[in-house]
Amino acid sequence: MLPKLKIMKKNFVAINYINCKPDYQARFEELFSTRAHAIDKMPGFQHMNVLKPQQPGEPYLIISFWDNEDAFKTWTQSPAFIEGHKRGFEDIKRAKDEGKEPPMSSTFKVYNVIGN
Amino acid sequence: MLPKLKIMKKNFVAINYINCKPDYQARFEELFSTRAHAIDKMPGFQHMNVLKPQQPGEPYLIISFWDNEDAFKTWTQSPAFIEGHKRGFEDIKRAKDEGKEPPMSSTFKVYNVIGN
Repeated sequence: MLPKLKIMKKNFVAINYINCKPDYQARFEELFSTRAHAIDKMPGFQHMNVLKPQQPGEPYLIISFWDNEDAFKTWTQSPAFIEGHKRGFEDIKRAKDEGKEPPMSSTFKVYNVIGN
Repeated sequence: MLPKLKIMKKNFVAINYINCKPDYQARFEELFSTRAHAIDKMPGFQHMNVLKPQQPGEPYLIISFWDNEDAFKTWTQSPAFIEGHKRGFEDIKRAKDEGKEPPMSSTFKVYNVIGN
């Protein structure tokens, strides 16, 4: 397949909607700016975007583009997924151990690309 | 600037969250599959994706990538914006004239890209 066609082929999208407490936002952004890039090497992964909302109180969006849904599911069940979320998971666990509310919460929603 | 760098430069994103009544979804998808592509010629426009949610009741997402926020704002105030939304606006007006609820509603949210 030609590289150009590969770029145009966007069939499946997963969006992780992440609500961050205001005092955790700087840490959250640091986690992404220093991410391990393990996801980048997953089969079927195309690219991703980290979006910061301009409106306060709205969630951050982590949008990932995949060749198909199976490639995304394989990633969520892989050691790379655990490794990629390790520091965030640790922050959540620490808050829990200290009897505090979690600094962030996330929800995955999945989509089919029907137009470009 | 090299074309490759141009592709990587994703600074600003606008997402139009569109709630569609179930009996309007086929029409809504038809509007996008036959869109005028007027937005594609706007200065600063990079590309867009039309996402259909797999979960029922979730909004469709129209994600557009721009060089900067000004380019997006210029588009929303342009004749191309009115032209591009004409058929959808007509459907909404027709429902109103017939005393029915609008078949869809939309909300724009805007974001800065902080990571790829």
